[in-house]
Amino acid sequence: MNVTITGASGFLGRKLAHRLLGANALIGSDGTASRVERLTLLDVMDPSAELAEDPRVTVVTGDITDRALLERSIPADTDSVFHLAAVVSAGAEEDFDLGMAVNLDATRAILDICRRHGTKPKLIFASSCAAFGGDMPEVIADMTARTPQTSYGTQKAIGELLVNDFSRRGFVDGRALRFPTVVVRPGKPNKAASTFASSIIREPLQGDRVVCPVSPDSRMFLASPRSIIENVVRAHNLTEAEWGPSREATLPGFCMTIRAMADALEAVAGKAVADRIDWQPDAFIQRIVDGWPPEFDTQKAVALGFVRDSSMEEVIRAFIDDELDGKIVA
Amino acid sequence: MNVTITGASGFLGRKLAHRLLGANALIGSDGTASRVERLTLLDVMDPSAELAEDPRVTVVTGDITDRALLERSIPADTDSVFHLAAVVSAGAEEDFDLGMAVNLDATRAILDICRRHGTKPKLIFASSCAAFGGDMPEVIADMTARTPQTSYGTQKAIGELLVNDFSRRGFVDGRALRFPTVVVRPGKPNKAASTFASSIIREPLQGDRVVCPVSPDSRMFLASPRSIIENVVRAHNLTEAEWGPSREATLPGFCMTIRAMADALEAVAGKAVADRIDWQPDAFIQRIVDGWPPEFDTQKAVALGFVRDSSMEEVIRAFIDDELDGKIVA
Repeated sequence: MNVTITGASGFLGRKLAHRLLGANALIGSDGTASRVERLTLLDVMDPSAELAEDPRVTVVTGDITDRALLERSIPADTDSVFHLAAVVSAGAEEDFDLGMAVNLDATRAILDICRRHGTKPKLIFASSCAAFGGDMPEVIADMTARTPQTSYGTQKAIGELLVNDFSRRGFVDGRALRFPTVVVRPGKPNKAASTFASSIIREPLQGDRVVCPVSPDSRMFLASPRSIIENVVRAHNLTEAEWGPSREATLPGFCMTIRAMADALEAVAGKAVADRIDWQPDAFIQRIVDGWPPEFDTQKAVALGFVRDSSMEEVIRAFIDDELDGKIVA
Repeated sequence: MNVTITGASGFLGRKLAHRLLGANALIGSDGTASRVERLTLLDVMDPSAELAEDPRVTVVTGDITDRALLERSIPADTDSVFHLAAVVSAGAEEDFDLGMAVNLDATRAILDICRRHGTKPKLIFASSCAAFGGDMPEVIADMTARTPQTSYGTQKAIGELLVNDFSRRGFVDGRALRFPTVVVRPGKPNKAASTFASSIIREPLQGDRVVCPVSPDSRMFLASPRSIIENVVRAHNLTEAEWGPSREATLPGFCMTIRAMADALEAVAGKAVADRIDWQPDAFIQRIVDGWPPEFDTQKAVALGFVRDSSMEEVIRAFIDDELDGKIVA
């Protein structure tokens, strides 16, 4: 199979690339598990040397809003596209035009390129629970209206509508997945308003103090990188018939307060580690986070067999294993 | 006030233009009723001579996908834009690119032009109940997910999301209204899949036989031109505080079967008139209509004081008065 990942140098993109280069990770439209023969990695940043040196990998580095670059990244024999590239929430809030260009126009360009190929490639679109917001019911169900309170959420909700319509018309075989907030991300904080949810676990585990910019009573809907990658691959491998006419789902996650996250950190790594969190609410971030829905009923995703993390403690332990070589600064 | 109507030569556009040229139809952002001093009418077709000759009217004739034309139609001192222009449902289904260009790109261009003026003009966007569809609950509420089953409905749902986000950011003072199917339209059938809902009343009243392309058991959600125009003006005149953060509403309407519509026609105009309907279901139209939701709970619109027609009989009598000079062929 010939596969493209956009946003491939991002944290989830890298994990997905490694997963897809493993044996028979993907199921083709003929229903059989297949090797990935060519993997095109598109990002504004170069991928790791390890990925770039794999003979199956083609690297395309540049701006996703450049149509010619996108066309090179999605050649006519592409079987599947994983579209992860995005300007994240606070970034799209700060620079409206950039968010529209990357999150909306580039998504539409990818759909259009796939359509012009006439081969109905699979397209997995990374949407977000930020598509919900504002005056919401206590629990967000699959049929709750998308009423985003950020430009990022708006652009993602529009992407879902486009993926559905392009799929309905047979232009692509699309699947739009609303990601919960992903914890624990490795590396540096990014421009997502939710980035603190990872920072408050990641930095203390490495001996650094960290500012938590929201109240400990704030609630978030979370999922781990392991479960997200598992579910992204599952979303690809399900058949069109299994998806049915609606090509979108909120991925399963778990809801908890920031305080409970800190408690889980203490349970896994000790009080000294958890005490490295400084609670200093920031009105801008608090307002964005308060606009997000905290609790979800992901009935459709559960029926489709998507996985859910068992606990925050398990998520923290997996982060320590996957990203810190099992070592923490107690 | 300086006002622009797009789709101004359409049936609702014409009615709205006449209404706005009446005394003090609009309430400005200062809360006082004002005369319309300049009314720009944009459409691909020329407006009626009566409208064109009004000294307050500026006519702009051409393609709404032409950015320069749109900029001329919405000068910097525009107070309010009524954006009614659209490629309707069956039209956008037949020509995907045209639907995207008119329904999505032109809507976005209008939002962008308003934003660049930096004056936060009012923008009333005509959306549609076709934004709903597919696997739906029995009754569509304000918080039911938009899951359109046509490209037209998709493009309208996207327009609503854009209007909300541009409003949230203070670029425009937007209001998106989901119209029920409008009955009874005068003139010729158009490319809307719903056009028969008017034809089956309009043609028999004038002595002509008409084909009804859907089953008499099909249900539709309807509103009259009178109530739609009343509600469009009301949507404009409500304050930002009255609208609150969510700038969209499904307008009130009434739900009935096509058979009940024919019965109302018989009650108003007699059996000979109602017998001019030939029932010949067309699979293409039936499929589109079956994908639309029949019943709505328009709680938000009712709370905001939007009006609802009292009965189909009243709607037919109003059509006879407004469009047929009170005369029917019995």
